[in-house]
Amino acid sequence: MTYVRNAWYVAAWSEESQSRRPLGVRVLNEPIVIWRSETGVLAAFEDRCIHRLAPLSLGRCEGEMLRCMYHGLRFDRTGRVVEIPGQDRIPNSLRVRTYPVAERHGWIWVWMGTESAADEGLIPPVIGMDHPDYICGHGQLDYDAEARFVSDNLLDLSHVSFLHTASAGTSENWARERPKVTEQERGVRIEQWLRGEGSYGSVAADAAERVDVYSCYDFFVPGVFLMTQDAYLLGTADALNGQPPPDLDPAAKKFVAQQAITPLTEKTARSFYIMAAHRCHGGADQRDATMAVVPKIFAEDKAMIEAQQRIIDVTPGWRFIATTADRGVVLFNRLVEKLVREESARSSDASSTGILDSGTGPNLDRRLVGG
Amino acid sequence: MTYVRNAWYVAAWSEESQSRRPLGVRVLNEPIVIWRSETGVLAAFEDRCIHRLAPLSLGRCEGEMLRCMYHGLRFDRTGRVVEIPGQDRIPNSLRVRTYPVAERHGWIWVWMGTESAADEGLIPPVIGMDHPDYICGHGQLDYDAEARFVSDNLLDLSHVSFLHTASAGTSENWARERPKVTEQERGVRIEQWLRGEGSYGSVAADAAERVDVYSCYDFFVPGVFLMTQDAYLLGTADALNGQPPPDLDPAAKKFVAQQAITPLTEKTARSFYIMAAHRCHGGADQRDATMAVVPKIFAEDKAMIEAQQRIIDVTPGWRFIATTADRGVVLFNRLVEKLVREESARSSDASSTGILDSGTGPNLDRRLVGG
Amino acid sequence: MTYVRNAWYVAAWSEESQSRRPLGVRVLNEPIVIWRSETGVLAAFEDRCIHRLAPLSLGRCEGEMLRCMYHGLRFDRTGRVVEIPGQDRIPNSLRVRTYPVAERHGWIWVWMGTESAADEGLIPPVIGMDHPDYICGHGQLDYDAEARFVSDNLLDLSHVSFLHTASAGTSENWARERPKVTEQERGVRIEQWLRGEGSYGSVAADAAERVDVYSCYDFFVPGVFLMTQDAYLLGTADALNGQPPPDLDPAAKKFVAQQAITPLTEKTARSFYIMAAHRCHGGADQRDATMAVVPKIFAEDKAMIEAQQRIIDVTPGWRFIATTADRGVVLFNRLVEKLVREESARSSDASSTGILDSGTGPNLDRRLVGG
Repeated sequence: MTYVRNAWYVAAWSEESQSRRPLGVRVLNEPIVIWRSETGVLAAFEDRCIHRLAPLSLGRCEGEMLRCMYHGLRFDRTGRVVEIPGQDRIPNSLRVRTYPVAERHGWIWVWMGTESAADEGLIPPVIGMDHPDYICGHGQLDYDAEARFVSDNLLDLSHVSFLHTASAGTSENWARERPKVTEQERGVRIEQWLRGEGSYGSVAADAAERVDVYSCYDFFVPGVFLMTQDAYLLGTADALNGQPPPDLDPAAKKFVAQQAITPLTEKTARSFYIMAAHRCHGGADQRDATMAVVPKIFAEDKAMIEAQQRIIDVTPGWRFIATTADRGVVLFNRLVEKLVREESARSSDASSTGILDSGTGPNLDRRLVGG
Repeated sequence: MTYVRNAWYVAAWSEESQSRRPLGVRVLNEPIVIWRSETGVLAAFEDRCIHRLAPLSLGRCEGEMLRCMYHGLRFDRTGRVVEIPGQDRIPNSLRVRTYPVAERHGWIWVWMGTESAADEGLIPPVIGMDHPDYICGHGQLDYDAEARFVSDNLLDLSHVSFLHTASAGTSENWARERPKVTEQERGVRIEQWLRGEGSYGSVAADAAERVDVYSCYDFFVPGVFLMTQDAYLLGTADALNGQPPPDLDPAAKKFVAQQAITPLTEKTARSFYIMAAHRCHGGADQRDATMAVVPKIFAEDKAMIEAQQRIIDVTPGWRFIATTADRGVVLFNRLVEKLVREESARSSDASSTGILDSGTGPNLDRRLVGG
Repeated sequence: MTYVRNAWYVAAWSEESQSRRPLGVRVLNEPIVIWRSETGVLAAFEDRCIHRLAPLSLGRCEGEMLRCMYHGLRFDRTGRVVEIPGQDRIPNSLRVRTYPVAERHGWIWVWMGTESAADEGLIPPVIGMDHPDYICGHGQLDYDAEARFVSDNLLDLSHVSFLHTASAGTSENWARERPKVTEQERGVRIEQWLRGEGSYGSVAADAAERVDVYSCYDFFVPGVFLMTQDAYLLGTADALNGQPPPDLDPAAKKFVAQQAITPLTEKTARSFYIMAAHRCHGGADQRDATMAVVPKIFAEDKAMIEAQQRIIDVTPGWRFIATTADRGVVLFNRLVEKLVREESARSSDASSTGILDSGTGPNLDRRLVGG
């Protein structure tokens, strides 16, 4: 899997860890346990006891500790073994790997890379479940496919003209016109005017409903899609000469669609999604209307992407051919590859200078040296 | 998989592509889409769009074209990309691999080898669903086993004495007497008299029912089984000194059993079968009687062959030991190996002379050179 | 798989082969057919016909013979082919591998190693279904995990303090105190006093119920667990200075728990279990009480061990870290490795001197030389 490690991955919903029951998740094929201590502190460990590799997600939160419920080893929040029942001496080096973890916008984010590089400032500006100005709907969907193919789907919205005609009645303009694609430091921005459409880029049922829609989204590393769509009076796009609307004010957004795509295993991925409607522009009604159609749209994506994966699986030496619609796909994946190369280079440097890097897999010994 | 490529494989029933909805099938583990244009022309493409490898079988027939419903690329009947929505320039080289396809006897046949070698004269003389003189029943059955083990089952009918006693009450004569086996250009012929049996080689319920049955079948590359069974007055076989009956006239056949065995993936196979009764010798009654027992017989074959496959799967370095009953099996598999060797030799020659061969997998570039 | 071959593996229940219908089982990933002749003689063959590798477990017992029901080959009890229908000459060398088989204590045991080393004296002293003094309950449970992890679970009962609190209300003393572990010739013995507990090591509901429990078990190669638990008056352990009770008489046992762990495939295992209560100490009531809770306890083991396996499967280069509770685990696995090394050495010796060893997989030819 070619995925950036120095990035925040959405691993779960905040509400999933309210119960102080540890939560087992999978990110980049690594088993991770997320748990909340009695005082509410969140922690993320590799989900395997150092003793017999039993999953700690089958364990029990005990105050500020987590106990493995196979043979009873107990860990403090830093991952150190503090109790082995029936044994007095506990080597100080016994500990599980911990992951930096953050809770923001209703999502629990886990940093999969070097601990020292974990910067909460890199968490994208999601309009979260807890945003005061928005009414949100949310859900999640699992794909039997590589996460990158789900991301690629979101990076080229020309597909909505064909794949989503049945569910969303989308116009062919999504495919006929090319959006403006701009590289960002940690992603790409993709924006376009859709002239004379119904709201949100569907074909208008009658002429009176036609508007100009301005669609703009950022797609951030590792796979966070943040889109806003605003409807303007017909003619606005031309009046603005195709430039973005000047009042691109977050509070004015009519419709916000957000997804975080997380690789679970090599060939499974989870989409966490939040659909938000501004209180002053549709609110709960708009949210409900959106949430009524979203599962149908995503089911179409899922069917196509999983079918694509099955074809790829029987195509040795497969490759894609890019069209001009793939500019976002190409730029984003080029960025991912660059970041992965840089991580790999840093990791080699670190090895030669004795500075440790959090790699994949069991690295108890290496971590203990520097721990 | 050691299978002949220069051969017609049954991929589907004719009726399956009546609706102009593209049909995704698998042959030799290659995903293939079969579709019928508005004017009724049948085409078979590799089932993956050149762009993102989405299956074209999820696409839409549009007149004489086929559109991929992921990002909207459109292909003409020769496999060439004729439209990329939103993009003016389309490289002439963009095309999917096509397969020669034929529709005959109610089956859709796909040629998996070199296009120039595709000769419809090689389609075996099936008594098809559309034959004026026969009343047919048909069905299909999938095996979780390599196609060759299903073929081997049909090439040695000594098994019917043991495997099918429960369903068909078959006599031990099938196993006790050896049929005459003759090599053919594209297969083997296997024929034998069964003396003093009930109709079709079952044990006769009482002496008055006893007849002599002449059973004769051809097994053609890649896996087409065409069998006829005729019942004669008791004593005919001896009167003929064991020679075939002189009136071996297709119109006189009492019972016709036909199967096409197609490898879907490495370890799955599909049997397409047609059971035919002559209008003058049993007709619909005979067909119905046959179709009532056939599913039971084939269920016995399927259980045994899939169990055999599971044993083989846990037997490294496995090998079969041939008995004298395996003459048909041995001759047919020797023929297959010879044909495969010849294909392989031709393919090497072709490479060195620049002539292209249709191999497996994605071969866009190579095909484009010669396309 | 690192498992001892020169050992008796429980393959089935005696009652499973009462019907003279051959029984297909899997041991160490080898398919084995167990069948009983008309005169009651038990035999165990590799479960694949020499002809087409069809499983003989789909065959038919015919007197003292076993017939393959694919093409009708017939085998005598020594594994030799004695009939090929329709063929006069049968090479004397045609035979399937046979396994030494024994029937004892209600279990059918198969010896997986060198035939000449098969010694029924090595079958552990199980209190079997047929024991006159005990009332038994029994069952079996399949694990999607390597057999050795199931064995390890039984070799370190400190886990019962944590894993089985819900089902059995077990005391923490199982984990807080270390048992005495003694090496045996073919296993380990693990014994301990549990002071002031309820019967069988559960927490006592009230003080009046408290007893001292003496728990003692042997764990034999390849994976046979034989445990007895006796309840004594509170204070007995201290009065005996922690020494075993002098009346360690099999007839006096209050509670006997026995399991045989058999590797079916590389990552599946079966537990055959017999729970026995002495007629004079609880009898059927005690048996019923035990059998009511055992499935809950084993379900907890199964959930944990299968979860452990899934974690191990995604942990390249995984290793366990032993605590002081792992003494039994460590000693037993060291013994297994020693025995495997010795087998491997003997096998090399044998090869160089021409003496044959029964290895894994199809070894017809090698066996035939020495057969």
